[in-house]
Amino acid sequence: MTDVMDRPALKVVGTRPIRPDGVDKVTGRAQFGADFHLPGMLVGKIKRSPHAHARIVSIDTRKARALAGVKAVITAADLPDLASQEYEAGESASNLRDLSQNCMARDKALYQGHALAAVAAVSAQVADEALDLIEVVYEVLPHVIDVEAAMEPSAPVLHAHLFTEGLAERPATASNIAKVNRLGRGDLEAGFGEADVVVQGRYTTKAVHQGYIEPHACVAQVSQDGQCQVWSSSQGQFMVRTYCAKILGLEIADIRVTPAEIGGGFGGKTTVYLEPLALALSRQSGHPVKMVMTREEVFRATGPTSGAVIEVKLGAKQDGTIVAADVVLKYQAGAFPGSPVGAGSMTALAAYDIPNVAITGYDVVTNSPKVAAYRAPGAPISAFGVESAIDDLARELGMDPIVLREKNGVVSGVKAVYGPTYRDIGYLETLKAIKDHPHYAAPLGPNQGRGVAVGFWFNVGGESTAAVHVNEDGSAVVVTGNPDIGGSRASMAMMAAEVLGLPVEQVRPIVADTASIGFSMLTGGSRTTFATGMAVTQAAGKIVEDVKRRAALIWDTTVDKVAWESGQAVCLDATKSAVKPLTLAAIAAQAGRTGGPISAEVSLNAQGAGPGFAVHLCDVEIDRETGHVTVVRYTAAQDVGRAIHPAYVEGQIQGGVAQGVGWALNEEYIFDADGQMENAGFLDYRVPVASDLPMIDAVLVEVPNPRHPFGAKGVGEAPIVPPLAAVANAVRDALGVRMCDLPLSPPKIRAVVDGLAS
Amino acid sequence: MTDVMDRPALKVVGTRPIRPDGVDKVTGRAQFGADFHLPGMLVGKIKRSPHAHARIVSIDTRKARALAGVKAVITAADLPDLASQEYEAGESASNLRDLSQNCMARDKALYQGHALAAVAAVSAQVADEALDLIEVVYEVLPHVIDVEAAMEPSAPVLHAHLFTEGLAERPATASNIAKVNRLGRGDLEAGFGEADVVVQGRYTTKAVHQGYIEPHACVAQVSQDGQCQVWSSSQGQFMVRTYCAKILGLEIADIRVTPAEIGGGFGGKTTVYLEPLALALSRQSGHPVKMVMTREEVFRATGPTSGAVIEVKLGAKQDGTIVAADVVLKYQAGAFPGSPVGAGSMTALAAYDIPNVAITGYDVVTNSPKVAAYRAPGAPISAFGVESAIDDLARELGMDPIVLREKNGVVSGVKAVYGPTYRDIGYLETLKAIKDHPHYAAPLGPNQGRGVAVGFWFNVGGESTAAVHVNEDGSAVVVTGNPDIGGSRASMAMMAAEVLGLPVEQVRPIVADTASIGFSMLTGGSRTTFATGMAVTQAAGKIVEDVKRRAALIWDTTVDKVAWESGQAVCLDATKSAVKPLTLAAIAAQAGRTGGPISAEVSLNAQGAGPGFAVHLCDVEIDRETGHVTVVRYTAAQDVGRAIHPAYVEGQIQGGVAQGVGWALNEEYIFDADGQMENAGFLDYRVPVASDLPMIDAVLVEVPNPRHPFGAKGVGEAPIVPPLAAVANAVRDALGVRMCDLPLSPPKIRAVVDGLAS
Repeated sequence: MTDVMDRPALKVVGTRPIRPDGVDKVTGRAQFGADFHLPGMLVGKIKRSPHAHARIVSIDTRKARALAGVKAVITAADLPDLASQEYEAGESASNLRDLSQNCMARDKALYQGHALAAVAAVSAQVADEALDLIEVVYEVLPHVIDVEAAMEPSAPVLHAHLFTEGLAERPATASNIAKVNRLGRGDLEAGFGEADVVVQGRYTTKAVHQGYIEPHACVAQVSQDGQCQVWSSSQGQFMVRTYCAKILGLEIADIRVTPAEIGGGFGGKTTVYLEPLALALSRQSGHPVKMVMTREEVFRATGPTSGAVIEVKLGAKQDGTIVAADVVLKYQAGAFPGSPVGAGSMTALAAYDIPNVAITGYDVVTNSPKVAAYRAPGAPISAFGVESAIDDLARELGMDPIVLREKNGVVSGVKAVYGPTYRDIGYLETLKAIKDHPHYAAPLGPNQGRGVAVGFWFNVGGESTAAVHVNEDGSAVVVTGNPDIGGSRASMAMMAAEVLGLPVEQVRPIVADTASIGFSMLTGGSRTTFATGMAVTQAAGKIVEDVKRRAALIWDTTVDKVAWESGQAVCLDATKSAVKPLTLAAIAAQAGRTGGPISAEVSLNAQGAGPGFAVHLCDVEIDRETGHVTVVRYTAAQDVGRAIHPAYVEGQIQGGVAQGVGWALNEEYIFDADGQMENAGFLDYRVPVASDLPMIDAVLVEVPNPRHPFGAKGVGEAPIVPPLAAVANAVRDALGVRMCDLPLSPPKIRAVVDGLAS
Repeated sequence: MTDVMDRPALKVVGTRPIRPDGVDKVTGRAQFGADFHLPGMLVGKIKRSPHAHARIVSIDTRKARALAGVKAVITAADLPDLASQEYEAGESASNLRDLSQNCMARDKALYQGHALAAVAAVSAQVADEALDLIEVVYEVLPHVIDVEAAMEPSAPVLHAHLFTEGLAERPATASNIAKVNRLGRGDLEAGFGEADVVVQGRYTTKAVHQGYIEPHACVAQVSQDGQCQVWSSSQGQFMVRTYCAKILGLEIADIRVTPAEIGGGFGGKTTVYLEPLALALSRQSGHPVKMVMTREEVFRATGPTSGAVIEVKLGAKQDGTIVAADVVLKYQAGAFPGSPVGAGSMTALAAYDIPNVAITGYDVVTNSPKVAAYRAPGAPISAFGVESAIDDLARELGMDPIVLREKNGVVSGVKAVYGPTYRDIGYLETLKAIKDHPHYAAPLGPNQGRGVAVGFWFNVGGESTAAVHVNEDGSAVVVTGNPDIGGSRASMAMMAAEVLGLPVEQVRPIVADTASIGFSMLTGGSRTTFATGMAVTQAAGKIVEDVKRRAALIWDTTVDKVAWESGQAVCLDATKSAVKPLTLAAIAAQAGRTGGPISAEVSLNAQGAGPGFAVHLCDVEIDRETGHVTVVRYTAAQDVGRAIHPAYVEGQIQGGVAQGVGWALNEEYIFDADGQMENAGFLDYRVPVASDLPMIDAVLVEVPNPRHPFGAKGVGEAPIVPPLAAVANAVRDALGVRMCDLPLSPPKIRAVVDGLAS
């Protein structure tokens, strides 16, 4: 671990206490989305489209309703028909009409697995039987899934109302291209004119799923007076509350959402699928309703990320100065607009200081599940193309790939391609950490290759609320509104403990329901430790100010004569030399006499999240017989600002790498000619398991973020950005051939090996 | 309803919206203590002493432990042996050692029903079987239950370590008199010397139970890492947390208590019986444990209030000026010290301005369940004696009983017998309300009589926390830490709505668990609407200040140019004449741009709760054949400061009267010669049912409390103080004979009638 910052004064931040929720999770006591039970609870299930694209001629639910044990049957007719309306909650921007129609198809089924109707019944068996009794008449339509095929003027059009946004003038006909976005600067033609060397490539990625282990699950209950309760696994209880209110036309004040533990989300749980339907079923039946997806439903009907085409052209001078870059990105959005091509465009060249740049992004609807956010949404895809091309450029120039990146790398003060001017970034430090790492100079064996790639993620701040309550014995509770995905309970407790001067075990972190804490944006965008952590730190700071005031009252002095040191109020008043320091426990014991309970809440909209840069180094070995690629060594360095709990930061980095390696080597949605997903299960959709990966060496580079009280930057997303290219570059190094189409699965490797051999 | 205060500006406070928790309660959806379920939950049951007083020679649990399905067996040996230590939480002061030994007997069983051991098993049947297999060897001891018998030097001594407190010197021998307290002023002998008329009497009351419909119930869970969760029905989740921590030797930070709905408490749920045992059983078994008392257990093993002897002597001049009062109070404490004789002493003469006073109180342990708080603890008992004697004095003087009370009544500026000087009290207004009421002049029928009595309760403030969170759509949530017993959810929402300018339906009140809100003392002492309401009002006020600041930001003006009127920010800046008012919804929609979520929390120790005075008027009719007394008309006036929700204030008054009538006429603990309670069930322990009572006319006298933002005073306890004497005075009026021993049950009435006839 590289430690670039002194931390003499910190006692808790930077240490590695055990996680507060660990025992409950390993003993099975933690309650995930499917673990809630209510008396009289029904089982809710969904009828889904067998067709990738079909007009819904009619849905007849009469037989299903008549079945004994069926308590509710709903279709889109039971939900309000929403107007198109943009809504933004944290990372997740959605069109509410589309969100509603993705939960329940209204006129057309737009992908295989699209929800058409839902039932609530006394048992799963009765519910299944009821689904079979729902009679749907379809008019099957031609479908399109491939992103470039969907862009063709002749392609089947998903939405008759969809006219491409972002063009100079409104097009005459509907199209599957929802939006074109352009980013750039300088003069591209002149730039390439200056170049001594030009490399270019066309790269493709397939749709991949976040692969969270816990399927979507919820329990919903609507009381006779319209009061709604939802228990669900999500990345944001407030997001669930808002979306349910909007989709069902309810008042926000009438909905209370309690977050379950979350068994992985990675962006995929920043939206709703089941919750509004469960509420509608509960409202109709008068019973609580539980809905739990199967793994197959998760694959077929929740959002993977985009399959994409990335075209990159780079021009450089012989000394390695990159003078021009042209990037074209075509991203699948799935059934409704909203691929992450915008973020893919903004991040594509964010690590490079290039004078002449054009980036063009296409957001394209296709007959596949609406994509959802997936960790650094859009960035791994564009980075795969750009970093592959940079690797080729380094080879072309005969330069060390890290030196090439250093030469063109962004530093503080440089204006990013996507707009802002960088401050306090640690990109060059991170490149250096890899260059200096023993791994970089380690010898390679036969059939082995080494690849480097870098990645960038913005990290965001945003709206959060936190409360700190001091108990009567001087211990404390920290309350936030953000589900704990990557260990945030621990980091919240640690930051509060640091400020209060308590041992971290005496600070109990709680994730509260939507009624019990103020609004907080969802856990996403790598924002929680930064933004919610800032709210926690400020709330703890208010506590310290308050207890100093109370100590002054107890000592009959003024608050400026009181210091807070190591969890104790110390009297600086020379006239009170006899008084002894007061611990938080001692002050808490006198809370009643000094103004009542000791408690503070802070709501804020945090600004100044520091962007994250990751530099990854990957060694692979190729089995030429089977085409199997083994990752034999992996080192991932990242500027994390300051690691609050280094073990969880390392875990985030290791997890991001693991997912990126799966994306690079094995994972893909495979559709047949009818648009049916052929591998909707973990047997056929192959995510890496422990034996597929080496121990990933996470190198923490700490260039503190001065806009966070402890210097933290977001860390959860940047680590998934470089692996696609790092692996591909390593395979290029091992094989001697550039492979541009992910995943680099054994059949493709074998095809290359066979080609080399022939 | 008497309305002594204008309320021109108030839109919500003083109205009668439907209660937010009403539908859930009438439809059975509300979750009470016994309604929680957890996977793998065990049933916990308690082995209880069959003897009123016995030394525990041995407890052999081996056979019980060996029974299949038994997962845990505990005795006092599984709890720490606590040192004597006073602890105060809100209303409920307890000695922790005694509290622990009341939950589980250590060396002696002190009353029939005293817990000796507890088991947790897979079913209630197995648990019952296990209880039978626990072998206890007792050395049965002589017992004493009657309070005066227990005071005799020859009485069996319950606690060898108990030496009477409050005497001039420490006594030589242990005694059942735990404490003697004295209150007084002036010169009693001289006072009586001045008197023209002296009346005196000796009055007795029996132990009566609060009679809450919901038995004590809880679910407890201890995780392998020692994290504890408790769901229980109580008057204070923080009280439960503290007591469990103390009794089990745990850290407060390791316990989270979630309050259930509460099906009545009336003071009886201000302590713990089951929760520490359920936690100990869960810790031993590794499973969640549910414990639910039977009604019989509630009677035998939870706290009723004291049976008592009250001796009153009053001296007055012929003009009605009372010049001397001597009151002696002897209260049963049950098995451990701590009867409400202190409060009984302080309230006894609180309505009277008498120069020469002595009040002596005895706190006496007896072989009966440890008494618990019961609505205005101690006050109805002493008031029964004093108000009976005042009635006799009025007869003796030939004065109207209200005029006599007016002549001697306390007013603002008078120093109360118990210490403080009254401010802003409405006693005389309340007397006048009854004197002016049509009831007071209504004719009486044959065998009917009319009685007047007054009552006093301090009302308290204390420590509370409240948070107000504004949702994204401008609706709001109000969070407090006080269980809703008497409609406080509604009053909290109303006060917040009043300040925010929202319709009350848009403010959702929530009672949060101990982790989700700051410390709050329990719901008791008539403190919640006053103290927690003050926190709510202040938090809502902070919201208004915050949204005014945000409106100023939006309008680019200064905050002093913004007013908050009818739920809207109004711009007073003459240079911004074009801007339109901003609703809370409009400001909430821009919260992100103006500083983040809109949320505020306030913790305080509220002072200045206004004391409450109640004046009751009761008509009874006596059936001379059966001895049955029917309450034919009842009017109860009370100074409530300001009624936030008048219907619930009226409900509190009606409920207090109903309980007081039961106490006066029928309720009593009946013990046999062995100290066994003979009537531990609602069949034999007769609480009033609807058909036993007339519609009680509640008259709200509103003399506002200037120390509460809306003028509120506590209202829940004062109404139970006068009924015992009001009923007894009415019976005296009807029969022509003073009856001094409650309850005035048919056999006693018959005995008097028979005596009159003979």
